[in-house]
Amino acid sequence: MYICKKTIEMSTCDMPMPALSDIIKAKKNLEKIVKRTDLERSKSFSNMVNAQVYLKLENLQSTGSFKIRGAYNHISRLSPEDKERGVLCASAGNHAQGVAYAATKLGVKSTIFMPEFAPPIKVIATRSYGANVILKGDSFNDAYEAAMEYLDESGAVFVHPYNHPDIISGAGTIGLEIFEQLDDIDMVFVPIGGGGLISGIAIALKSMNPNIKIIGVEAEGAHSMRVSLDNGVLTPFVSGNTIADGIAVKAPGNLNFEIVKKYVDDVVVVNDNEIAQACYRLLQRAKNLSEPSGAASLAAILNKKVDVVNKNVVAVISGGNINTSILEQIIEKGVIGEGLRARIAVLIPDQAGMLSKIISILEKLRASIHDIEHERSITNVPVGHVQVTITFNLQDTSQLFTLGEELKAKGLPYKILK
Amino acid sequence: MYICKKTIEMSTCDMPMPALSDIIKAKKNLEKIVKRTDLERSKSFSNMVNAQVYLKLENLQSTGSFKIRGAYNHISRLSPEDKERGVLCASAGNHAQGVAYAATKLGVKSTIFMPEFAPPIKVIATRSYGANVILKGDSFNDAYEAAMEYLDESGAVFVHPYNHPDIISGAGTIGLEIFEQLDDIDMVFVPIGGGGLISGIAIALKSMNPNIKIIGVEAEGAHSMRVSLDNGVLTPFVSGNTIADGIAVKAPGNLNFEIVKKYVDDVVVVNDNEIAQACYRLLQRAKNLSEPSGAASLAAILNKKVDVVNKNVVAVISGGNINTSILEQIIEKGVIGEGLRARIAVLIPDQAGMLSKIISILEKLRASIHDIEHERSITNVPVGHVQVTITFNLQDTSQLFTLGEELKAKGLPYKILK
Repeated sequence: MYICKKTIEMSTCDMPMPALSDIIKAKKNLEKIVKRTDLERSKSFSNMVNAQVYLKLENLQSTGSFKIRGAYNHISRLSPEDKERGVLCASAGNHAQGVAYAATKLGVKSTIFMPEFAPPIKVIATRSYGANVILKGDSFNDAYEAAMEYLDESGAVFVHPYNHPDIISGAGTIGLEIFEQLDDIDMVFVPIGGGGLISGIAIALKSMNPNIKIIGVEAEGAHSMRVSLDNGVLTPFVSGNTIADGIAVKAPGNLNFEIVKKYVDDVVVVNDNEIAQACYRLLQRAKNLSEPSGAASLAAILNKKVDVVNKNVVAVISGGNINTSILEQIIEKGVIGEGLRARIAVLIPDQAGMLSKIISILEKLRASIHDIEHERSITNVPVGHVQVTITFNLQDTSQLFTLGEELKAKGLPYKILK
Repeated sequence: MYICKKTIEMSTCDMPMPALSDIIKAKKNLEKIVKRTDLERSKSFSNMVNAQVYLKLENLQSTGSFKIRGAYNHISRLSPEDKERGVLCASAGNHAQGVAYAATKLGVKSTIFMPEFAPPIKVIATRSYGANVILKGDSFNDAYEAAMEYLDESGAVFVHPYNHPDIISGAGTIGLEIFEQLDDIDMVFVPIGGGGLISGIAIALKSMNPNIKIIGVEAEGAHSMRVSLDNGVLTPFVSGNTIADGIAVKAPGNLNFEIVKKYVDDVVVVNDNEIAQACYRLLQRAKNLSEPSGAASLAAILNKKVDVVNKNVVAVISGGNINTSILEQIIEKGVIGEGLRARIAVLIPDQAGMLSKIISILEKLRASIHDIEHERSITNVPVGHVQVTITFNLQDTSQLFTLGEELKAKGLPYKILK
């Protein structure tokens, strides 16, 4: 899978935590810019986990993610002099789009450093929102360093992706909306990258009703908030790679860490398979496209990381800007995971008519063939034989067993590939 | 692409057209069963065609399509005796799910004939809604004939997919909702298969405001309504295959044809490429998954089949139950169509180091490789050479030109594959 490892250095912010009042001000501030995204009940997911599952669809937000809320709130509150100097950020993804869009709406110049590997779709979108995009370096770190150099030269204002009270207050407006949209909320699941989103939502909801449980969700490949909580001290941590590029952050901000310690009930970890499956199910069941980070919250619910039975639970689907190659792989994996696509390797004597024997079994089963490889020169294929590898779609999972029986009856050795 | 050709025989119904009052009664009838789906303004599509484009999201309806509206309305109005006898239909798709769901909700037994090739996902869903599903025959026609035989034996009530006033009135509730959801509607685009959906919507909207233009959209592979209108007489017509399986119907119903003649302003035709592109754009821009038939309405708008400039236009996205193989192909085609994935064949001398030369050019351009084929035994490859075919993703479309220049500079003949 396509992997993006973000390694923003630990950032410190010496400003105070925002309060509920700051979030209410942010809401007013965002009124004409930001969509009040739907909170949709999902019948399928509710049935799957025996709870009432609601999706807060920030993937349908302008720019395709929640990031515009913080970016607009932050930039709009800059002094006229700061606005004049323009804004600057480094991002491989949604923050770039949020800053570009917000700055342009406010008539502020934006310069955005993105790594050269940034998904084309995000680069194109960021440019289309009016930013000056500079592609720099092989990693997010390189882009970040280039941004820092430019900061010194240009005097532009750096817009941090999560570690700033105005960014947090902007994100917190999602909490206010959920509170208005649903009575009797039991739990809200929020993806954690740097921790800006959950910081705002937790302050908003806990201030209004301390009984609402706020659950953070991190990707296994980058669960620095979980590690920091366990250590009792902010700890940078990247254990591996993850498909959830939007939340693959080396360390939360200090402000975010303090807020999470104070307001968040638990932080759980989901792996890439769980995330990919949640994305696939969102697409198939809810006809809704999310990016991997965006579906981490749903992954935690579907994989029962916390007991949700009979509860009213909300999954914040934070963004929908997915790289096409990743989407293709998620769909492929999803179909295989459901047992509706399989792959078998059959060893056949290199004689006329052998291949058609296999094909006719598949046709009889109404399995539709996805692709075929017919290979001779593989080390474990005996002379006079060929190995045929067939990928095919099934009508139902039981057909794979029937297929095996038919091949066995014809004396053809096969194996099912994973 | 996976193709489904429906060839339901011409059906006649001697009942009268429903009136606005029937649709209002249907609305009351459906109140607790059917979602009032969102009417979403799309910024991207509005900008693309210089109009205000709204999407009526019936793909987010229960069972994944609008069909439940007609099915529930129809079955709920059967006499107690008829309900006791159970209902019956033949369908490869959404109608099956609508009937199964509606019947079960009403405590009525349903038997549904589906062709054996029916997409597994639809068969599984139909069964999960409580129907007795019988897979029969190679084509929709075979399943339909089997259903007719069963009709005679069983005495169950046949629920027609479109040619019945109660089915039409149920679909018409979408028109009422659009009227409530949007002021100043100029045009509404509706996919046409058998014509049930557009019949109901046209009666509802034209009865309330005759100035609203109703535009039907058919797939090129099955545009029997267009042909029937041109001939002035109901004409079965299937010119070829189409990916829009949900609207691939051999002939509209007589009732539908009469209603379309009376209330519909125009019927336009879109081809499979236009439909596939509309699906892809819905997914990418609106994060919304539709099936090909469901996106035909949007395809007509995006491809300017009618002048929509400065108008308020609604595309009814009628369903979202897409077969995974088709979805995979739509995404693949979409990426290629945007110029962000390309395929080149390069002829290289069969010497060490030649392949890495090409790879290093691609890496320099930050193109990510999707797959590589390295072939020797193709007839047009001279001895001592191999042909390398590489599929790769680009950051932007201009890179393909740069790549060509680099290969030329290294003396490597190449061609760009379509």
